[in-house]
Amino acid sequence: MSEIIELARRARVASYALAEASRATKDAALHAMAAALRENTDTIVAANAKDVATAREAGTPESTVDRLALNPARVDGMAAGLEQLAGLTDPVGEVVRGYTLPNGLELRQVRVPFGVVGIIYEARPNVTADAAGICLKSGNAVLLRGSSSAAASNEAIIAVLRDAAESTGLPADVVQGVPTDRAAVKELMQARGLVDVLIPRGGAGLIQTVVGESSVPVIETGVGNCHVYIDADADLDLGLEILLNSKTQRPSVCNAAESLLVHSAVASEFLARALPALAAAGVTVHGDPTVVAASKNTSAATDADERGVVAATEEDFGTEYNSLDLSAAVVESLEDAVQHIRRYSSGHTEAIITRSQAAARRFTQAVDSAAVVVNASTRFTDGGEFGFGAEIGISTQKLHARGPMGLPEMTSTKYIVIGEGQIRT
Amino acid sequence: MSEIIELARRARVASYALAEASRATKDAALHAMAAALRENTDTIVAANAKDVATAREAGTPESTVDRLALNPARVDGMAAGLEQLAGLTDPVGEVVRGYTLPNGLELRQVRVPFGVVGIIYEARPNVTADAAGICLKSGNAVLLRGSSSAAASNEAIIAVLRDAAESTGLPADVVQGVPTDRAAVKELMQARGLVDVLIPRGGAGLIQTVVGESSVPVIETGVGNCHVYIDADADLDLGLEILLNSKTQRPSVCNAAESLLVHSAVASEFLARALPALAAAGVTVHGDPTVVAASKNTSAATDADERGVVAATEEDFGTEYNSLDLSAAVVESLEDAVQHIRRYSSGHTEAIITRSQAAARRFTQAVDSAAVVVNASTRFTDGGEFGFGAEIGISTQKLHARGPMGLPEMTSTKYIVIGEGQIRT
Repeated sequence: MSEIIELARRARVASYALAEASRATKDAALHAMAAALRENTDTIVAANAKDVATAREAGTPESTVDRLALNPARVDGMAAGLEQLAGLTDPVGEVVRGYTLPNGLELRQVRVPFGVVGIIYEARPNVTADAAGICLKSGNAVLLRGSSSAAASNEAIIAVLRDAAESTGLPADVVQGVPTDRAAVKELMQARGLVDVLIPRGGAGLIQTVVGESSVPVIETGVGNCHVYIDADADLDLGLEILLNSKTQRPSVCNAAESLLVHSAVASEFLARALPALAAAGVTVHGDPTVVAASKNTSAATDADERGVVAATEEDFGTEYNSLDLSAAVVESLEDAVQHIRRYSSGHTEAIITRSQAAARRFTQAVDSAAVVVNASTRFTDGGEFGFGAEIGISTQKLHARGPMGLPEMTSTKYIVIGEGQIRT
Repeated sequence: MSEIIELARRARVASYALAEASRATKDAALHAMAAALRENTDTIVAANAKDVATAREAGTPESTVDRLALNPARVDGMAAGLEQLAGLTDPVGEVVRGYTLPNGLELRQVRVPFGVVGIIYEARPNVTADAAGICLKSGNAVLLRGSSSAAASNEAIIAVLRDAAESTGLPADVVQGVPTDRAAVKELMQARGLVDVLIPRGGAGLIQTVVGESSVPVIETGVGNCHVYIDADADLDLGLEILLNSKTQRPSVCNAAESLLVHSAVASEFLARALPALAAAGVTVHGDPTVVAASKNTSAATDADERGVVAATEEDFGTEYNSLDLSAAVVESLEDAVQHIRRYSSGHTEAIITRSQAAARRFTQAVDSAAVVVNASTRFTDGGEFGFGAEIGISTQKLHARGPMGLPEMTSTKYIVIGEGQIRT
């Protein structure tokens, strides 16, 4: 038997105990895991230092090294995350719906754990504790397949978490690490029936690989080519503030805006204000011909503004930059904005800025993305902001879960049917 | 561009109009489709006669021909099914949850159609109208890939449905047929991004093929190796009645019982009654050694009873017979029954017969199947019986939908977020 099959079978056995564990047991385990992380800070930071040294030797970019690096404050943050999970409602056992059938059968649809969840992620060791905690709270045994560049860190963290879980009476195998070699991840993706769902967390490349190669059901997360549309009836002050916030408040994340659409009726007025403001914020605008022309015609244009606007290619409109870049186009109507979004969006988050009730209603109806926002920043599409308390990722697929995934999205359901001898006739 | 890609793109365009169609428009289309089926009964039955003749010439088993064959009564039944759908609540637009965030943002999670749904099914032309109706009512454009042996029937039905949809103002492309050649179905299974979900309806072989080869998300339906467990505290009269109903009321369907487990404390008493009753109902019991011995030791055993019991192989316990066969084993405890079910069940429906509240609670907690039943027949796991009004299939997977899938299960959701200038700080 291969190592992955063996790990998955052990996870399955552990999942039976975990599925029946009470909230009190699971919360005690989360607190024990948090305390153990804090107690073992030195060991974890020392293991992480090896990964960081290896990464630096390999010439890894410093931004990647920063995501990889742990210090006592970051370990404390991981522990605090687990404690926060302990405070959240247990999704398992929630009655989603229930009623009595005409024949007297009592029907209840209740939330149950998936069973075994695989998480495939990149070189961010904090995800190890975070994903383990979310899976444990939702009653799922987890197989954690992190990056080889974080192998020492993850090994240290997983050892601590397993011991802590076991100390509270849960099987250690509720949390297991998966070897980081390519063969192992391929096997994990083919373990249909043994692994109930795979969740890739990371960049578009990782997600596309998992989606393309996995026979285990996958939940896609996190690719966001988000749009801000300034309607003909927009409050332009409010539009500018929301655009700047959506683009620049944290440009590296999936709910940051990547594309601006402006209705032609307000384009010259809005662009005359927005282009200098974007340039001042360090944003490079990849504009369609109208936007490029606007940048030149603006009487107030300075050299800095012109430097901030370049001609967009077709590819720009489909790009998730994750940087201080923004594609921009002028559209003739709200319908054209909808068409543009249907063509280019990744289905994450789109915002309309308008004072018109009809325009807001039309946009929210016609745009089919995980989140459709009226008069607010795209940056709110987030499990924390939505009040979920925890988030395993933001689903951009339509099956099972769409948008921020909290604890309930980490469960399946089953029907419990109680009778007193009913048969079908 | 391949024909499938072209069909899928047309379905996508049609889906935009359908997603925004009011319930009144969709119900009018369903009524028009029903009326058109009735009006065109002769054309449909004549087309079907060609398929039936071809099938008979090819030596197709008469049971398969029976599922393929249409007559005026069956066409009327298809029409009645569409009319019934028109009477059901529209799932689109339902607010699943909603609240106001601390910053004043109004958040609503609302049901929206998937978009484009592909149905892959076998030689049952009634599925064509049924699936088209369920998809239309739930706002989804549908690509129908039926069996080549029903090609003439399906072509006639789809032509009628398309004309009727168009007559009420919807695009004809809300319903499209897919060529039945093998290359076309392969392309359909690879049309990720163009097709939102594939639902195979049919036997285990079809479903496994689609699950294994598709990169489009799949909802697995319908494989049922269902168990009836007679607990130590069972009312044996009630247990026998439920067992016979679960096994024999309609043995060919997925919610029929395929396996009997009996607690050893009541095994000899129960089997002494059940084995003759099963034999009298024409059931062949594939028993473990204890069951085989019981069949011989039963003082009331007749030749008929003995003929009804054969020795089970390991494979029997994992088999969905869909016939008058039943595997049977004696277990030492409820925990052993749970272990047996975990090992062999397909996760469809399992029933316990018991008067013990503790046993019922333990069984419903420990058994993880789409439906867990106490003191009632397994045959109730059905969209109609559960009160859903319509059913596209019974999901045996854990992602998205589990158990009978009605109209809400044919939708995704999106978040609508309404603000007045909120930005993240």
